[in-house]
Amino acid sequence: MNWAISRRAQQLTSSAIREILKVTERPEVISFAGGLPSPATFPVAEMEAAVARVFADNPQAALQYAATEGYLPLREFVAKRYQVDVERVLITTGSQQALDLIAKVMIDPGSPVLVETPSYLGALQAFSLFEPEFVSVPTDDQGLLPESLTAELTAGARFLYALPNFQNPTGRRLPLERRQALVARARGLGLLLVEDDPYGELSYAGSQLPSLLSMNPDGVIYMGSFSKILAPGMRLGFVIAPPELHFKLCQAKQASDLHTPSFTQRIAYETIRDGLLERHIPTIRELYGKQCRFMLDSLARHMPEGVRWNAPEGGMFIWVELPEGLDSMALLEQAVQRNVAYVPGAPFYASNPRRNTLRLAFVTVSPERIEQGVAILGELFRQAIDAAAPQAKAA
Amino acid sequence: MNWAISRRAQQLTSSAIREILKVTERPEVISFAGGLPSPATFPVAEMEAAVARVFADNPQAALQYAATEGYLPLREFVAKRYQVDVERVLITTGSQQALDLIAKVMIDPGSPVLVETPSYLGALQAFSLFEPEFVSVPTDDQGLLPESLTAELTAGARFLYALPNFQNPTGRRLPLERRQALVARARGLGLLLVEDDPYGELSYAGSQLPSLLSMNPDGVIYMGSFSKILAPGMRLGFVIAPPELHFKLCQAKQASDLHTPSFTQRIAYETIRDGLLERHIPTIRELYGKQCRFMLDSLARHMPEGVRWNAPEGGMFIWVELPEGLDSMALLEQAVQRNVAYVPGAPFYASNPRRNTLRLAFVTVSPERIEQGVAILGELFRQAIDAAAPQAKAA
Repeated sequence: MNWAISRRAQQLTSSAIREILKVTERPEVISFAGGLPSPATFPVAEMEAAVARVFADNPQAALQYAATEGYLPLREFVAKRYQVDVERVLITTGSQQALDLIAKVMIDPGSPVLVETPSYLGALQAFSLFEPEFVSVPTDDQGLLPESLTAELTAGARFLYALPNFQNPTGRRLPLERRQALVARARGLGLLLVEDDPYGELSYAGSQLPSLLSMNPDGVIYMGSFSKILAPGMRLGFVIAPPELHFKLCQAKQASDLHTPSFTQRIAYETIRDGLLERHIPTIRELYGKQCRFMLDSLARHMPEGVRWNAPEGGMFIWVELPEGLDSMALLEQAVQRNVAYVPGAPFYASNPRRNTLRLAFVTVSPERIEQGVAILGELFRQAIDAAAPQAKAA
Repeated sequence: MNWAISRRAQQLTSSAIREILKVTERPEVISFAGGLPSPATFPVAEMEAAVARVFADNPQAALQYAATEGYLPLREFVAKRYQVDVERVLITTGSQQALDLIAKVMIDPGSPVLVETPSYLGALQAFSLFEPEFVSVPTDDQGLLPESLTAELTAGARFLYALPNFQNPTGRRLPLERRQALVARARGLGLLLVEDDPYGELSYAGSQLPSLLSMNPDGVIYMGSFSKILAPGMRLGFVIAPPELHFKLCQAKQASDLHTPSFTQRIAYETIRDGLLERHIPTIRELYGKQCRFMLDSLARHMPEGVRWNAPEGGMFIWVELPEGLDSMALLEQAVQRNVAYVPGAPFYASNPRRNTLRLAFVTVSPERIEQGVAILGELFRQAIDAAAPQAKAA
């Protein structure tokens, strides 16, 4: 039977990358593809103790239906941490759900939505279901260019979606002056900013830049996540929004899953209520900083001339640019044959993909395997550059 | 700042009922309004033991990102229980999420969607966000009337949404012959059936009727839930769909929240893997059957002539019809002043609401308070009938 499905569902197609990356689950594959945090950072013992407290305290309440807005003590924890009114805080089923809710509340078919170049693939997917018209905002190695936000480019835009901290996929952090310029421009243009910040706490040096939210709470929807600082398998995120939008997001949330499990919210709260994050996050920063240096050292040792990459100050990703003309998607198949995987950059672009880019994730791979995998990639890229060189001359 | 929001978000308005029912959280209010299962039925000790096993087994995996489709052993458990291929099973964040995903995949603005008269409010809300055109299917005291499904009524319909077992709000169970007739008609019309079944296991006598799914697996999307047989605070449901629709639902799910927490899925699986449901569900049936009889006895004692209600064979709800001309919404305010609450029937209708109807939930209220609350409602309704009588004569 061929059932009639929605227009938005018709455009959902199986991703070619996903098919290729399925093989990376084989243990012999050195995968720089996943966006997974390191399980070594999960505070297992503390969470187990927290579960015991939840069961000792009021298990019936933890297992019953609960308020759509979220578990009040957890909302208060977030409100205090971000210095906002608790009435602006909504707990979500991972920050991916916040993307879905924001899309539901803000996007009509054809609505212009501004995104960074490149941007987070999961956001592009979540928004796509609501059929916006993506508008790519120019960036350079430091991220988004605020001066590019003209009245013409932003006309009718429902919002600008930005990841100012250690962006997925590029690892870039937006400098302070650009944040200030961005917020000022947005305010002048009446442009809503959606700030996605799953990696903000993961600065290796511990230095944090002020959030867009802190600069203009009434002009920003802020999305946070416990996935990178606690554990992603709990699916706990939150969204901080101006009151009138918070109210709409709550209504959309109620229709979407009633509420995030009260059980996991209480566990998270019991885990972090007494200052765990202050002790725990520095250990993640240290591990990820070390892993990043391993990867950067390996890249320096093995990448041929013509390959460029950045040196992130935090987060989980390095962005690599091959010489123009090379296609990281075509090369992925060869890499996977040699048991190394990465994510090609093209799908992260809402328009005009740069096919010579790719993303490397480094936090879950051992130093030995980083070295080994980067050596293989270096060799592969060198061969590709050499093979392309005569063509380039001929052209 | 007045941000431009989506058309679907504009139609989201605060519910008048919700506002009235907020006061029912006061402990002195006898509430027949909630749709909450009884916390006395939550298998707390078994779940606590299950959590210990999850932590002892592989906590890192339980706390890591996981497959969108769900935790494989839990999917296999569902597949075996419903005798379907595991490839058709998707675990959802409560069955409310299944409604959202089905809407995402099936509904375009203006798509006809058939619903029972009345139908589950949460489904109407979830579907509404995708702007269908609801078509109400006639029902009687036994539920949906299959012969009403003509080619004309069902023309272009994306699906028919039905709750055959102890429907929310009416408590009705669709008889076997109607199920057979419904499935046959739907097949003939090429009409997809969406079968929502959160209460199917809650037959007081333990008797179960075959699901629509079992009668035509390729023509039915089946939604199940652990909320009423385990605990709703875990937010665990599932959807069984024909392969091509399963695939689309998974893609929509990935964009919506990546996956349901692996942590809660593993806990549920560890709780039920060794036959807990077979021991546990009969205790829920017994409790709910007893509670239903208390409520029916009280209704018989206290309701004035002209008030009708049904005697459900399972589930959590009784449906009450006041004499024509009375408005249960207007009466709710008076009831709440007397510290009793229920849910008016009107919002459960997609069109032409019958304002003289209301829903009573009885599983979380003690027998003494059921008696007391029903006595107050009986008195209130008697006064309303008496007050309306002269008008009726005058009219």
